[in-house]
This record gives sequence, structure tokens and C-alpha cells, in this order.
Amino acid sequence: MITPTNQPTTADLTEDTQGSLIAAGKVNGASVYGADAERIGHIEDLMIDKRAGTVEYGVLHFGGFLGLGSKHYAVPWRMLRYDNELEGFVVENITKARLDNAPVYEPAGVRDWNMVDNYWGM
Amino acid sequence: MITPTNQPTTADLTEDTQGSLIAAGKVNGASVYGADAERIGHIEDLMIDKRAGTVEYGVLHFGGFLGLGSKHYAVPWRMLRYDNELEGFVVENITKARLDNAPVYEPAGVRDWNMVDNYWGM
Repeated sequence: MITPTNQPTTADLTEDTQGSLIAAGKVNGASVYGADAERIGHIEDLMIDKRAGTVEYGVLHFGGFLGLGSKHYAVPWRMLRYDNELEGFVVENITKARLDNAPVYEPAGVRDWNMVDNYWGM
Repeated sequence: MITPTNQPTTADLTEDTQGSLIAAGKVNGASVYGADAERIGHIEDLMIDKRAGTVEYGVLHFGGFLGLGSKHYAVPWRMLRYDNELEGFVVENITKARLDNAPVYEPAGVRDWNMVDNYWGM
């Protein structure tokens, strides 16, 4: 029998970050930090393999500072490590210089995931 | 050098569903259909294994019809199959009767994923 319940809001549903699992809704928008724990951007979305159910890429949003443009980059997921203390993801090996030449994620543009893998050496 | 660009909106970023990958932002909110292709609910969120980067569970939202309550259920991800034609996920083996007794996903409640696996025979 279905009974009325106080339903959790989406915000409630995505607060669970302490266990081995994390809600995708909590990942999207999560801060991304460089090796020095400085915030360099955030995760805009995840790219998931439909069949395998594996997270393959994070779509990261960097930039937009000093009035200049910002860009989205697809980065292999295994470059990201969740840090419980920072409550965000750390990428140890992304430098600004390396990002400048990295494949940009564009909705109507190149979807060459092999190029992304090759660029990041994955 | 960073140059200003026309940045894609979040909506743009999540429109990619035809390839082998799908954006998490497109998965959240996606319709869920029963074996008869009738819409029975939608995906509210995904639970991702932080270390392995695997989607382990879908948090599904069913019910809310006839003025009665609705509930969230955690369902093992491999029970869901993406259907390009329906542009949503199909669960072949979930019946209403089976859902009635299924473990409910509650934000402050039980987080017993083993119970979820056992219930659904995974």
C-alpha cells in the first residue's frame, strides 16, 4: 500500500558524500582543486558509458576570470580524486599551461574521446 | 591564450545521448519505462562509486499519482537499459507489486546497499 510520506527534496538526496558512494547530483557543480588545494573550477557534468555504467569523463569548467572567456574541458575521470575534507575533486597533474592546449568540450563540436584520452595520456 | 567564446549552456552540454556515452545531467530527470514502454517514473539521481567511478545505483522516483505519496527507490544500475528510441531507461523486470516492498531510499535513513542488492537479486 502506498502511503503519503514527506519526500526528500533533490537537495536532500544529494547530500550523501561520506560513504563509498556519491550522488551524481552532488558531483555536478562540485569544486575542482589543483594540487595546491586552490580552487580552479568546477565539474559541469559527467559522461557515462551507457552500457558499462562507468563514469568515463568529467566535463570541467575552468576560467571566466578577469573578464575573459571560460571553457569546458573533458578530462578522463581517473585523473580526479574526491577529497572528503575539501568536499571536492583534486586533480594533481593539471596545470594551466596544459589546459591551454587541451581538447575543449563543445556540444556541437568534436566528440573525439580518443583525442581526449591521448592528450591526457590515458 | 584564453579568448572569449560563446559558452554552451548546461542544457546544451547534456543533449548528447546518441553515442556510447551519456551525460549525467541528461540521465537525471530521464523517464523510466516498464517492459510495456509505459512511463512509470523518472531517475532522480545516480549513486557513483567514488573510487571505481562506476554507476552503482539509480535513485528512481515513482508514484505520486491519485493524490497519494511518492517514493524514491535505489535500484541497481544494471537493471536499467537505455532505449534510444524512448530517450529514457527501460526496466524489464520491475513490477508495481515488487516495488511496494522494495527498499526505499531515504536521505537520513537506511543506507544499506547490500539490502538493496539482495532485494533485487543482484
